[in-house]
Parts: sequence; structure tokens; C-alpha cells
Amino acid sequence: MCQEFASGNGSNNRRTLAQAGVHRQPIAGIAGSRDRGAESVVLSGTHGDDDHGDVIIYTGEGALDPQTGHQTHDQQLTRGNAALAASAATGLPVRVTRRITMGSQAGSYRYDGLYRVEDYWSEQGPHGYRVWRFRLVQLPAAEQNEVAQPTPTPTADANIRERNDHPRSVSSVQRVVRSTAIANLVKRMHDYTCQVRGIRLQGATGGYAEAAHIRPLGSLHGGRDTIENVLCLCPNHHVLLDQGMLIINNDHTVVNRADSTVLGHLRETADHRVDRQHLAHHRVHHALPTDEAAQ
Amino acid sequence: MCQEFASGNGSNNRRTLAQAGVHRQPIAGIAGSRDRGAESVVLSGTHGDDDHGDVIIYTGEGALDPQTGHQTHDQQLTRGNAALAASAATGLPVRVTRRITMGSQAGSYRYDGLYRVEDYWSEQGPHGYRVWRFRLVQLPAAEQNEVAQPTPTPTADANIRERNDHPRSVSSVQRVVRSTAIANLVKRMHDYTCQVRGIRLQGATGGYAEAAHIRPLGSLHGGRDTIENVLCLCPNHHVLLDQGMLIINNDHTVVNRADSTVLGHLRETADHRVDRQHLAHHRVHHALPTDEAAQ
Repeated sequence: MCQEFASGNGSNNRRTLAQAGVHRQPIAGIAGSRDRGAESVVLSGTHGDDDHGDVIIYTGEGALDPQTGHQTHDQQLTRGNAALAASAATGLPVRVTRRITMGSQAGSYRYDGLYRVEDYWSEQGPHGYRVWRFRLVQLPAAEQNEVAQPTPTPTADANIRERNDHPRSVSSVQRVVRSTAIANLVKRMHDYTCQVRGIRLQGATGGYAEAAHIRPLGSLHGGRDTIENVLCLCPNHHVLLDQGMLIINNDHTVVNRADSTVLGHLRETADHRVDRQHLAHHRVHHALPTDEAAQ
Repeated sequence: MCQEFASGNGSNNRRTLAQAGVHRQPIAGIAGSRDRGAESVVLSGTHGDDDHGDVIIYTGEGALDPQTGHQTHDQQLTRGNAALAASAATGLPVRVTRRITMGSQAGSYRYDGLYRVEDYWSEQGPHGYRVWRFRLVQLPAAEQNEVAQPTPTPTADANIRERNDHPRSVSSVQRVVRSTAIANLVKRMHDYTCQVRGIRLQGATGGYAEAAHIRPLGSLHGGRDTIENVLCLCPNHHVLLDQGMLIINNDHTVVNRADSTVLGHLRETADHRVDRQHLAHHRVHHALPTDEAAQ
């Protein structure tokens, strides 16, 4: 899982990576496309990433002044950033290569295996402009060679079709839906009916709904497992909320970010009220630069 | 994770388990309810379960002649069976206790920790009648004490509310959506548009859809990762298909099993045709005793 590449000056090293087929993009840190997802990222050790080894909070690309290296405007969810977001949606893993910054190998690059994009969001960066952040989690050792590899080229569809009768299926996790005791309580309060449009899926043994934490759980985002931070949603609206495509305003109108249409009015019950601060956090968490009004 | 209970005759032992709060149902193998899910199951070692330690294919309850122990009609998705199905939908874990059948401890019971209901289906049992089967997978050691515990009593909602400001959130996996290179190809073929009703979710960087393997992958069900075995669905219809609530007939009408309404007509493309054998397998895989016509 760990492979080092010859030392040398930076551009030669990156060229070596490109020639080895590990990272095909000789300049940008993210190789891939919006359609296919990201193939690989390179951590330069100088870009504001939080690197914890098996978990990386990777900062997106763009909006830097080439002379000073300072950020001069908001990063967009385009190019490499859109590729990483697409990887989160498809579940396909991303190759991670690190630039070694210390010791005798300093300046060389090391391939460190496959990671999954588990989450992404936008936040204010150190220069006052918005950056995109991506949470990358290393796949377990057993899956490093078994999962579907990142798709390298647009012509790969033909190759996939040829392998169509391949007996071994390689799968990757696209999405994990979690629940908690609090979440199950909120679902029962709403009788498994989506708070956005009133859809109630009838599962094999009763209603089926999913609980969405408005402000994500965990120390990174500070969300708590309380009923005021949970919505009862159908899976379709849960996906849209998690991707930041549902905006819930303080008056509880639910807006589809894709086309600005109003989808409905968030339904509450006497027992279950949503905390507006969490809604505000969600709007900012997924904010696009064009969303001034929504913040 | 492993705790033995005093030897003795069968009924005394089961009473001991009930008194210890491990398994509250002194006779049936499955304790729980359709609303809350299953709290615990007991493996007697005589009930046709396939026990692989960390993975158990557990046979549902009911339809046995009390005199002969032979199955005399189809098992229903009710009572304990419905409770296990509900556990699959909520993601809450289930306690597993095994009856020891050999050695000096034979006849006693051992608590073996928390398992998750990953899948369930119906199939023909050894006596010619349908049985329900549940795939239980042991939680990793690290999660044995951390995840949300099975909810023991209907009055627990009040307790949960009281713990509402508890800073530590305990989550369980409700649903895992997997993808493969083939699955992603099928999604692109349909431009991320659901084949049932034509819904296309607009995600942050493009369309979002999920791929459903009609016949599940793996040696247990024999499904293969080929485009003829994959559907492109919106998350809502994916959930319903996985729970056996969407029936797709050979003429491609899609029927909602809950109320027998026709939801639509499965859309195909020139490049992507679905294999009717896989559709037939899916109908039988989730068959209810009342589904004669659909088989």
C-alpha cells in the first residue's frame, strides 16, 4: 500500500507520479472529473490539510493568487472540488499520495492507498474566503485491493462492459445511513412520514423513514443527538439534505437549491420542534458563494 | 461479550436468561415487537440455523406442529419475524444468545454479544413450506458497547427523552448503499433517472441515483454484478425494492405490494435490458404467502 517515488525537484517528481499512472494531473492536487469523480489527490503538506493518517480533512483547490499563494476569493464547487464531491456520491475510492516533508526522503512522494470521501462542506478559510473541505477516510486493509478502482478514463465504459461477465464483484460503499435511539424516537413521533412533503413509505413491517441530523454529529461539526437536531425524512429528501440541496429557511419553507423552487413547508408536531440555529448552521455548512441571501 | 448462565433443565435455563434481562421471552426464540424491533434471539442449535459464528442465517419462527416439530404451513412475517425485519429497518442491534450443545456446559446458555440484521428474505424450507431467513452479522468488538442498545420496553421513550441532552451519541447503521463500477455505468446510462417513476434527484455536482442489484450479490443469493441484474433507482424506490415492497412483473409493470397499485412501467434503454429471471427471483425472494399470483 505504500510506494515511494524517486526524489528530485518538485516538477520532476510530479511528472514521475503521472508517468507511473498514480496521479495523472501533473500540476493540480486533485485529478479526476465532475462526471467520474476524483481518481487521486496529492497532499503537499503545505495546503492547510488536517492530516491524521487514516483520516484527512482535505482542503479543496482554487482561488489562490499564484504570486502570493493567498486566497483572493471563494472556492467554487467546480473542477477538482466537484470531482471529490462526485466521489462522495458514487462511493468510488480515491488514491492518496503524500509528499514527504521531512527526513532523507523529503521532497519525494509516497502512494498511501485508497480513501473514501465520506463528507464535504464549505467553511470560511484562513484568509476570510470560503473553502471546500473533504473528509477522506482510509479503506480497511482488506479492501485496499478488492474494491472498485477509481475509473481512470472516459473510455473505460467499454472496458467495464467487456468485463461484464466477470464473476467477482467489487463493491464500494456509496452511502451509510445511521440511526440512534433519538433518531428512532423522532421517526415514531412523525409516524415515519417525511417532514418535507408528507411521503410515507410502506416497508415490509411498517413505515420506513430515515433520520437526518441537521448539524452533523461528532466533534468536527459539533452536532448533538437531540430531537431538536433531527428531521424525519424520506430517503430522497435525506440525500438532498445531506448534499446541501435542500435549504430550510427560518420560516420553515424548504427550497430546492438546484432550481430555487419551494418544495414545501417543514412540518412540525407539538412534541417535536427544530432548533433554528441548527438550520442556520446547515445553510452555511453547504453554502455556495451565490447563496448570500440564504445566509 | 461472552457470559454463561447456570446449567439446568431447559425451562429453568430460559427462565434464568429472562431474569438476567438478556432475553425477556421465556419460550419463543425471538423477543421483541414489530414496532420496536427485536431485542434478542436465542439459538437453540436445533432449529435449522446456519451458524458461522460472526454470521448467522437465522430461521424465523412459527408454523411448527407442537407435537412433531414439523412445519405444517408457511411462516408469516409477523410477531418475532416482523420484529427482526423491523431491526433491519432501524439498524438497532440484536442480542444473540447461544444454547451450548456439546461439552460439560451442554444445555446452558451463553450471551454472545450484539448482531445487526443485514438482510432477510423468504425461501422454501425443508418441509416444503416457506420460512423467513435473517442474516445476522456480529458488530465489531469496538462497537459492542458503544452502539445504541436494543430498546427493551415501550416506556423507554420517556427515558430516551430524559437522556436527550446526553453529550455522547450512540449510532447504529440503518442502511448501507453499495455501488460497483457496473452499477455506476448503469446509473450513467439512465442519466441518474429512476427507472420506476422517472424521478431525477439533482445533487450538488450532478444527478444522484442508486444502483440496486435485483438478485443480491454474493454466494448466498447468487446474484452477479452484470448490467442485466442492476436497476437505476431513486433512493425511495431502492428502499422499497430491497424490502420486497416493489414487485416488478415480466411485463415490466411495477406494483406496490402494500396496496397493489401500479406505480409505473419499468423504463429500459436500448443499451440496458433487465433479465426476467432476476425479476422472477426477486419476486420469490420476498414472497409473502398471499403472493401466489405473483410467483
